[in-house]
Amino acid sequence: MKKLINNPDTVVTDALAGLAAAHPSLAVDAENKVILRAGGPRPGKVGLVSGGGSGHEPLHGGFVGYGMLDAACPGEVFTSPVPDQMLLATKAVNGGAGVLHIVKNYTGDVLNFQMAAELAEDEGIDVVPVVINDDVAVEDSLYTAGRRGTGATVFAEKIAGALAEEGADLAAVAAVAREVNERSRSFGVALSPCTIPAAGKPTFELADTEVELGIGIHGEPGRTRAPMAPASELAAVALDAIGADLPVDGDLLVMVNGMGGTPLIELYALFSEVSQYVRARGGRITRSLVGNYITSLEMQGFSVTVCRLSGALARLWDAPVETPALRWGR
Amino acid sequence: MKKLINNPDTVVTDALAGLAAAHPSLAVDAENKVILRAGGPRPGKVGLVSGGGSGHEPLHGGFVGYGMLDAACPGEVFTSPVPDQMLLATKAVNGGAGVLHIVKNYTGDVLNFQMAAELAEDEGIDVVPVVINDDVAVEDSLYTAGRRGTGATVFAEKIAGALAEEGADLAAVAAVAREVNERSRSFGVALSPCTIPAAGKPTFELADTEVELGIGIHGEPGRTRAPMAPASELAAVALDAIGADLPVDGDLLVMVNGMGGTPLIELYALFSEVSQYVRARGGRITRSLVGNYITSLEMQGFSVTVCRLSGALARLWDAPVETPALRWGR
Repeated sequence: MKKLINNPDTVVTDALAGLAAAHPSLAVDAENKVILRAGGPRPGKVGLVSGGGSGHEPLHGGFVGYGMLDAACPGEVFTSPVPDQMLLATKAVNGGAGVLHIVKNYTGDVLNFQMAAELAEDEGIDVVPVVINDDVAVEDSLYTAGRRGTGATVFAEKIAGALAEEGADLAAVAAVAREVNERSRSFGVALSPCTIPAAGKPTFELADTEVELGIGIHGEPGRTRAPMAPASELAAVALDAIGADLPVDGDLLVMVNGMGGTPLIELYALFSEVSQYVRARGGRITRSLVGNYITSLEMQGFSVTVCRLSGALARLWDAPVETPALRWGR
Repeated sequence: MKKLINNPDTVVTDALAGLAAAHPSLAVDAENKVILRAGGPRPGKVGLVSGGGSGHEPLHGGFVGYGMLDAACPGEVFTSPVPDQMLLATKAVNGGAGVLHIVKNYTGDVLNFQMAAELAEDEGIDVVPVVINDDVAVEDSLYTAGRRGTGATVFAEKIAGALAEEGADLAAVAAVAREVNERSRSFGVALSPCTIPAAGKPTFELADTEVELGIGIHGEPGRTRAPMAPASELAAVALDAIGADLPVDGDLLVMVNGMGGTPLIELYALFSEVSQYVRARGGRITRSLVGNYITSLEMQGFSVTVCRLSGALARLWDAPVETPALRWGR
């Protein structure tokens, strides 16, 4: 497996140096592995902090900026960041109105964010955590008790970030993040494995004729393996699983997300299938994202995330955002 | 090779259906394979049309919108679109001020755009073509007489699109596109081949220990094969080749582009190397893009494009743009 890196041990810090060089709107602390909005904390604004293992880019660092996150803490590849990173980020973004932690439901992330929150509370900072657990594929898994957190994280960061930018208080910002999570479901499919740089071999093996249904973003197993099928059938598998848990009717925000190695032409072909499926069931996709937003290194495959919009959520989704990976309307 | 498609014969039209469903700002004619800005031609504005084989997404359809292209014509995968598509697009975007054709230097594209221009002229539409040939890797190649057109196409579409949006005339818009091409150079490196859906097998073979230096965006051969090397060395190979043709000092716009299958964490690690290389030679990267912009299906690898900015070009680069793949500042 060839990687465009210098050294498996420095890939995260090397990428952080690149992020810093490319985006003057960010203040990147490469040594402590914290990505901040430049310009210090915003007085009176609720701060938003997220984080998790690296290898899922642009999540989370690519979502730091106006109208979204105030800070992101990247761990090593597929490894939770440590409480010190989260504490440092929490203190750095605290503008006196408290800090929201957006936490994907993986055991390490949840424990470490919890410890960081307690340390921050000891220093007089109000912290509220919201745990994202939108992945319907499996209950419990290699890294998780309960459902895993995946694509809804992007939606929660955007929508809660917009509300915080408007000056809402910590309780309201946390409530809207929770609401996004409750209204969102995801399901992923892998066509190939990926390789953690430090490991040097694929996280799993998959035959040329097979796909893994319900894959996790670390290559952890899903529901089952199945024969490779056309895009229309794979879209239906994902949406059947989502629809069994949450009706896919009404106004919807839908993300067709690439796992990192799937070309955009295929993601758009899949989005067409998703769109037809939803329309046939009374849904209207009024907002969408198609591209690589929460990835699994160079894995080939996709995930679909559906969020049932309210008018308020749609307005917050549309609000201006200015980050490396999402940018519009300002 | 697994593909997220329904059928190799319908992948382009299926993707166009997805593009249409995801982006209400576009008017997609899937039957004739033309992607237009919704709302018809802009009276008095120079129209911008580009096009080329599919498989390079988001190029060109992802760059249709305010401040960039008025239309894109996608061919079949790695195959030039036909003159009828280009003629249809040219007529559809003509607001009376003439139409610029931005053409990547591949023999089929150049001939077909030339034929379309002649047909449009017969109907009374002024057409000026600008041919992009920024790739320093090879003179002449499998698909090209002279140098190939690659990453500078994105820059030319953005900058000429901004000038057209301001109301400049056809000669001025063509001149700035030409200037961008003259001030830009590119070089690409492949870590893996890609597979055309209809062919079903990789376009070339590459050993686990090798890279192809100077790769084309259709997998056509570059300068040479070399042993796999760290990101710092691969960045230096690309920039040495560029720098031998154009000094990389002064204010620069730099794109580190993924070929489709390379994760963003690796592209940022590479951008860090590019940034250090340029700084050591007196260059300042004042504008940048890091991500998948002109791809080669699921190929793993990258290209670097450098444009020597003037104040005027920087201002046009910064101007508002609103397309599926580039969006800021409006």
